[in-house]
Amino acid sequence: MTDRQTTDQPKEREEPQPGKPLWAGRFARGVAPLVQRYTRSVHFDRRLAPQDLVGSRAHVKMLAAQGILSQEDLELILKGLDQIEEEIREGRFPYRDELEDIHMNIEYRLQELIGEAGRRIHTGRSRNDQVSLDMRLFCREVVLTWQRLIVQAQIQLVDKASLLRSDLYPAWTHLQAAQPMSWGHYLLALAEMLRRDYQRLQSYLSQHNVSPLGAGALSGSTLDLDPDRTAKELGFEESFRNSYDVVGDRDFVLELAQVGTQIMLHLSRMAEDFIYFASTPVGWVQLPDELCTGSSMMPQKKNPDLLELMRGKASSVIGHAHALTVLLKGLATSYHRDLQQDKEHLFAIVDIVGDSLELVPLLVRGFTIDRDRTAQALQEGFLMATDLAEYLVGLGLPFRSAHEKVGKLVTYCVNRNLPLHGLSLEEIQQIIPECRPDVEKLLNPQTVLQRRKHAGATGLNSIDAQLSFWRDWIEERQGSNR
Amino acid sequence: MTDRQTTDQPKEREEPQPGKPLWAGRFARGVAPLVQRYTRSVHFDRRLAPQDLVGSRAHVKMLAAQGILSQEDLELILKGLDQIEEEIREGRFPYRDELEDIHMNIEYRLQELIGEAGRRIHTGRSRNDQVSLDMRLFCREVVLTWQRLIVQAQIQLVDKASLLRSDLYPAWTHLQAAQPMSWGHYLLALAEMLRRDYQRLQSYLSQHNVSPLGAGALSGSTLDLDPDRTAKELGFEESFRNSYDVVGDRDFVLELAQVGTQIMLHLSRMAEDFIYFASTPVGWVQLPDELCTGSSMMPQKKNPDLLELMRGKASSVIGHAHALTVLLKGLATSYHRDLQQDKEHLFAIVDIVGDSLELVPLLVRGFTIDRDRTAQALQEGFLMATDLAEYLVGLGLPFRSAHEKVGKLVTYCVNRNLPLHGLSLEEIQQIIPECRPDVEKLLNPQTVLQRRKHAGATGLNSIDAQLSFWRDWIEERQGSNR
Amino acid sequence: MTDRQTTDQPKEREEPQPGKPLWAGRFARGVAPLVQRYTRSVHFDRRLAPQDLVGSRAHVKMLAAQGILSQEDLELILKGLDQIEEEIREGRFPYRDELEDIHMNIEYRLQELIGEAGRRIHTGRSRNDQVSLDMRLFCREVVLTWQRLIVQAQIQLVDKASLLRSDLYPAWTHLQAAQPMSWGHYLLALAEMLRRDYQRLQSYLSQHNVSPLGAGALSGSTLDLDPDRTAKELGFEESFRNSYDVVGDRDFVLELAQVGTQIMLHLSRMAEDFIYFASTPVGWVQLPDELCTGSSMMPQKKNPDLLELMRGKASSVIGHAHALTVLLKGLATSYHRDLQQDKEHLFAIVDIVGDSLELVPLLVRGFTIDRDRTAQALQEGFLMATDLAEYLVGLGLPFRSAHEKVGKLVTYCVNRNLPLHGLSLEEIQQIIPECRPDVEKLLNPQTVLQRRKHAGATGLNSIDAQLSFWRDWIEERQGSNR
Amino acid sequence: MTDRQTTDQPKEREEPQPGKPLWAGRFARGVAPLVQRYTRSVHFDRRLAPQDLVGSRAHVKMLAAQGILSQEDLELILKGLDQIEEEIREGRFPYRDELEDIHMNIEYRLQELIGEAGRRIHTGRSRNDQVSLDMRLFCREVVLTWQRLIVQAQIQLVDKASLLRSDLYPAWTHLQAAQPMSWGHYLLALAEMLRRDYQRLQSYLSQHNVSPLGAGALSGSTLDLDPDRTAKELGFEESFRNSYDVVGDRDFVLELAQVGTQIMLHLSRMAEDFIYFASTPVGWVQLPDELCTGSSMMPQKKNPDLLELMRGKASSVIGHAHALTVLLKGLATSYHRDLQQDKEHLFAIVDIVGDSLELVPLLVRGFTIDRDRTAQALQEGFLMATDLAEYLVGLGLPFRSAHEKVGKLVTYCVNRNLPLHGLSLEEIQQIIPECRPDVEKLLNPQTVLQRRKHAGATGLNSIDAQLSFWRDWIEERQGSNR
Repeated sequence: MTDRQTTDQPKEREEPQPGKPLWAGRFARGVAPLVQRYTRSVHFDRRLAPQDLVGSRAHVKMLAAQGILSQEDLELILKGLDQIEEEIREGRFPYRDELEDIHMNIEYRLQELIGEAGRRIHTGRSRNDQVSLDMRLFCREVVLTWQRLIVQAQIQLVDKASLLRSDLYPAWTHLQAAQPMSWGHYLLALAEMLRRDYQRLQSYLSQHNVSPLGAGALSGSTLDLDPDRTAKELGFEESFRNSYDVVGDRDFVLELAQVGTQIMLHLSRMAEDFIYFASTPVGWVQLPDELCTGSSMMPQKKNPDLLELMRGKASSVIGHAHALTVLLKGLATSYHRDLQQDKEHLFAIVDIVGDSLELVPLLVRGFTIDRDRTAQALQEGFLMATDLAEYLVGLGLPFRSAHEKVGKLVTYCVNRNLPLHGLSLEEIQQIIPECRPDVEKLLNPQTVLQRRKHAGATGLNSIDAQLSFWRDWIEERQGSNR
Repeated sequence: MTDRQTTDQPKEREEPQPGKPLWAGRFARGVAPLVQRYTRSVHFDRRLAPQDLVGSRAHVKMLAAQGILSQEDLELILKGLDQIEEEIREGRFPYRDELEDIHMNIEYRLQELIGEAGRRIHTGRSRNDQVSLDMRLFCREVVLTWQRLIVQAQIQLVDKASLLRSDLYPAWTHLQAAQPMSWGHYLLALAEMLRRDYQRLQSYLSQHNVSPLGAGALSGSTLDLDPDRTAKELGFEESFRNSYDVVGDRDFVLELAQVGTQIMLHLSRMAEDFIYFASTPVGWVQLPDELCTGSSMMPQKKNPDLLELMRGKASSVIGHAHALTVLLKGLATSYHRDLQQDKEHLFAIVDIVGDSLELVPLLVRGFTIDRDRTAQALQEGFLMATDLAEYLVGLGLPFRSAHEKVGKLVTYCVNRNLPLHGLSLEEIQQIIPECRPDVEKLLNPQTVLQRRKHAGATGLNSIDAQLSFWRDWIEERQGSNR
Repeated sequence: MTDRQTTDQPKEREEPQPGKPLWAGRFARGVAPLVQRYTRSVHFDRRLAPQDLVGSRAHVKMLAAQGILSQEDLELILKGLDQIEEEIREGRFPYRDELEDIHMNIEYRLQELIGEAGRRIHTGRSRNDQVSLDMRLFCREVVLTWQRLIVQAQIQLVDKASLLRSDLYPAWTHLQAAQPMSWGHYLLALAEMLRRDYQRLQSYLSQHNVSPLGAGALSGSTLDLDPDRTAKELGFEESFRNSYDVVGDRDFVLELAQVGTQIMLHLSRMAEDFIYFASTPVGWVQLPDELCTGSSMMPQKKNPDLLELMRGKASSVIGHAHALTVLLKGLATSYHRDLQQDKEHLFAIVDIVGDSLELVPLLVRGFTIDRDRTAQALQEGFLMATDLAEYLVGLGLPFRSAHEKVGKLVTYCVNRNLPLHGLSLEEIQQIIPECRPDVEKLLNPQTVLQRRKHAGATGLNSIDAQLSFWRDWIEERQGSNR
Repeated sequence: MTDRQTTDQPKEREEPQPGKPLWAGRFARGVAPLVQRYTRSVHFDRRLAPQDLVGSRAHVKMLAAQGILSQEDLELILKGLDQIEEEIREGRFPYRDELEDIHMNIEYRLQELIGEAGRRIHTGRSRNDQVSLDMRLFCREVVLTWQRLIVQAQIQLVDKASLLRSDLYPAWTHLQAAQPMSWGHYLLALAEMLRRDYQRLQSYLSQHNVSPLGAGALSGSTLDLDPDRTAKELGFEESFRNSYDVVGDRDFVLELAQVGTQIMLHLSRMAEDFIYFASTPVGWVQLPDELCTGSSMMPQKKNPDLLELMRGKASSVIGHAHALTVLLKGLATSYHRDLQQDKEHLFAIVDIVGDSLELVPLLVRGFTIDRDRTAQALQEGFLMATDLAEYLVGLGLPFRSAHEKVGKLVTYCVNRNLPLHGLSLEEIQQIIPECRPDVEKLLNPQTVLQRRKHAGATGLNSIDAQLSFWRDWIEERQGSNR
């Protein structure tokens, strides 16, 4: 049978324990067990327990400050919340599926622990603003974590780029040999991608710096709440301006998923590169043993599984982000239970992106280049053809004419199975009479390090300027992350 | 902190226990712990344990029949596999993350239990064909389960349709009142949707009825295997024709995800209907308490959470199916570790679709219609306008002219805030002189049950013919499922 | 036949005219006609002609300033580009499919018009940096257009909100009656959504303010280019720091698609609301005739097609944004021809989002509310239950107890088919003895306008504060957009 | 400006010509121009004109046979439809945007041509069943076209496989050298993938063989229609059983998009293979010039653009299929205008899939293998390691032990930078004492053609059996397609 019971996950179908939902006043009968299983979320949203406790503390302090809660009740509640935090940390908190979610579980447990005062914690609050708050706190922490992991990856990229700044390989476009390139320049391109991710996260922080607490179910409360106070207490820049908007808003989930998608796209492209670099007939790069696994049947295999999974998990993140998008499309405004589904998808994204970023330093530190194979590969593919055409431009030819002439020279070589540097000056001049003797030294790939000298090119002075930029960038970020 | 350690999921990061991967011969060092966590799959693919055991038994029996395995070893292995099955069933199987997946866990455990004979089970087999087999066995069972659940849902739909065959409501197009329709006709439309799902599953069964066992890693084996024997033993119609194709093929996963998507689209559309039917200002339908939940803040609420989640979970299935699609796009042929990611997504789809189908009977049995509110609603929206136009066609008017005339009559009513049946014959004839006295009885919604009499329409004889079809359909399916 | 020839689109399969690609030097044979049709993009990327001309002018000016191009050639080229611009504007530019894309078409035409000087325009440039530049210029303009359209929509929302600030309707959660809400508050929630879109566009402008010109094919040029000069000329904040990164980077396309997705999600949710508001049994809102269409068969229909298409086109944008995402997943770094596909999807997004935003003012200005139907609906659904529970909190009851008691009162009403305000004080006190005579006036929905008084709630002072915020916001934006 | 006016597409924003929609009877004012542009579909659904004419003819014949239409009117209408067909074929049909779609355009034109009789064509029909019919007819033709193109591709694959049946290359898993494989076996794996696509299309044909004509807007008609007659006339197996289901059903669009997705996944994987095979450092395969294009900057480039676009266009198809999926999610049952969006996405899929399939023969016929480079590559990567382990199994070793020993032998070679066949028998026996002298000839890759002899493996007798299967398969299909 395909059913989940056949595996050892007995918790999946356990019957509800005694206890009624806290909203049960209006209901004649309880929910059906299958419905309970379908609707419960505590098996995944328990992850929000830390945020829920932080948010609840801020809420009751505000209630007390506004005179809605007595000082005595406040202290009881805070003590109860501390105890719950301890129970959770120590793995002895009694989660109950029949109480639906982590929020109701905590409120119910609080009532068990402190009695009537616990029945006052939800005053002036709805799960709608409560869940929104917890998710926003959660996302804020995720963003800071990702930013930290990005900087750690960039540190390794810059270090390795510095080490390999004058080592060349035959860079491609269309996976065809294009032009010689410094490994350092390549690695700093990866750092640039991650920098754009970092900046989007930075923009995220200011875009979603809003506390929803006080919005209630959808239209605020008749009680004398002070939303600005909780906003401040929880480190938000401002409180919501429109209660109805804020309870149905999941833009902050969507945008995090979108940025996570961009990060994984970058990592999947990097992974694809290294899978190719390390593939048997290419072999420009060796991956460290600890990033590879073997085959159950083929004894010789050393497979880049980690990188393949990074590429595969990019698909997972894309799928989860897509689910979030589809969830919101055409949904009427305000809160609907559909929105519960945002959590599983967001959590999956958060785990994959975090783990993937954490793996980048292992890859970057661990890979080695095979100088013999790259040296040989630099002789293939007529990599210096562009330089030759630009040389002719320097002699006054229109670029388009230079391009054509070099194209013919390449065809000449292809037909004879020769590299460009295998031609004599005479042969070259037969096809391109403009060429002078100095053309020969130009056909050496190493010259790109000197001749591509403008800002941003693969020449050494550009690379050194980049390295200098990156050292400053990292120092600033590390300072601010401390 | 957002990290998973902060919640009580201690298993997530536990250190590997002593033990080495079974492919470790060629490796100097083991994998890094973070890599192990990233690459492991045993925490979810353990669900394939039953299929793995079935497949392994068939494999070793074939090996013995071909003289590759001794009868003695065969018996030892079969006994060992039985013991493992028992351990799994009783929840005491020692899963080990460092052994990556369920397949290696079982092979390793077999060696622990029976010694050297266990080292022979993987003869002439690779995880590539093994995983493919397990997944195919799994998918086959899923298909049969879904088909069974579909028929169960159809039984309820047909029963209720029979009950409500002559009860009308104002059916919409564009969510605007269109024409009166029998609730029975509506419910049988849902049965039709599920029937298309059933048929696609039926086609799936013949499309993917192929055993991959014997394909090895990618090109078969030099041993004298008999793939047809295992195919037959495992109930497949045929064995693979091309080893390279079959190990990299995930079409059977993709297609199941695609059919699952279609099922959830149907259920999401049904859910949307009932959410609307039961929304406060409409109120044509009452949902049973056991399918609803309440609000933490608003004491009066009875929310259709189940249906909203069904709609929301359709998004999840779409996202998971999308992840599978993206996984395969542009992936070179043959096996790549990316493919490991297919399982989590497929399993998520399987759970959601199965649960959702199982819920349909609860909804269909449980809802009640509010005859007062539908009766009132049938008076709004000029539902008989089309019938009136067709009446004029019967009198010889071109339909387009009839349509225009009735359009003008409706405008006349809108401006006076009158229903069509609120007009006197004289008023009607002022705008449509062709109308005769018999027009008045035609404006009663109930007439549609008699007047829409052709096959497939919402008239009673069409509905009765449908009911008769469905009783046969269900009887056949139940017979074949027995 | 399903083929495109059967419709009148003769251009689709026309044979290539005489002419060879500009890169043809190295090729023995031309491309096959079917290949040409498959690879051409000029039928859609001609839209980038304005950007291409602007970029080319900046490029040749830089070449001249650096002494790579003579002043004479510069003037010839600029004149030639002017003529091309005119030809395009007047619809007489000779587009040629066999020249692949708009960039090659312009370069080729330039050579036709001015001869040899035209063969110098591509000096130190590749299509890789050229296309990237054109797309970045295009996206920048799109962002400014969208921002302008958002502010125009907000102006209408604020005007209408001001008009309807004290008109109530029964707002929902879960599509079930929840609490009374001001239409003004509702409309300002829509303005908030659009404000987040605006802010993301603002962040986009600073995130992607980089000129790629000078990066060449992937590693820069050996010529003495000055990328900063072109960057400045074209209004970018900076030039690329890494040539390899910038030619393969499509983050700026991805992010625009992601923000476009968010915008369409917002509009699809708004559309869903209004389709519901205007549906026959609800009828709280009337849509203006000019936003609706009729039925070919049913004479009475007035369908909200526009809003349905807005919702449907959200799906299209999601699909196009997804195609872009999938395109980039697992693609090796650097330029690959796959990236050509980004344009069709981006252009489709740009058109849909722009048109959809432009339609919002028509909807907002044009809809009218039906005060009779909303007044009646405000009596249903026990909308004042939360206020009653909070009233009990004011009397000292724990909220959870108040919630339970009101829940019981609601059940009492449901069983008797009574609204809350239909109960006598005695009846109320039988279930909630704490209630005092002042409870009765609290059950009037209108009280929410006064009693929900904290910031962000649906009370009048909150709405007025919001209106004041919005007037400032709009004034600032209009100032900056002038 | 980014607006579409700036390019030469003047038709995009043209003002509506005089004329009113055919449903305008009930409307006081016409639609706004912007709304008309947003809602019109005639610029893309004109592609359905042939299907619309076929369907209309069948419809009016049925009306006449049922006595609803006079014989005289029937003949007038048929003549008018012929004339319209001619106008369309000759490109002089006057399409009008203000008439929304192709269906209304044809009905309107018919009235212009034949007067009153034209006003009778829409009797007993709605655009809802009409559009559904046209789309079903269209999809049926697409399926037959795709099947034909698949068989054409398979013919080339089988021919080439026959040619290259004994040529080997180092096949990979994880892009790492795995085992030697026949190019013929590889190519037949591609034929298998296409065969699964073919079979799904075959299943599609029986799944959706239903005529919707007669369902009207949603509930059928009061006229005495005969849906079975039109079904038969149009070649459908049956008529709809439930009018409400059939007008809102888009499963036939969804499933075609899903199968199209599967096809493009297959082609994208094939494209990825060949891009890799032909990449400079690999070079096992040469692509023909006519499938490649060059670079605007780098004179030597010969890029596999066609294959990259095939991979990229797979993303487009995925995106379009997704848009269709999202469109349907959570949409209430019955017809909604959202559904209009299905056409643009389906048409895009149809064009891409058709063109892509048509290109496969060009690739398969045109590529050549480089025997020198593959011969050299077959020496790398320890391809014979599995065969060696299975050899040891033949000597009685448990496979797991054999795997370990060979793993150690490989490590020995890696450390000395030696291939397996570079070891002397003594060296081998030092690590694997069981080895006998016959081991040496086993290390020659060519032996796989003889030694992998079971069905489905890469040995010659398996390949020949496959070729024989394929010749039969193709012959049957060509017969049925004639």
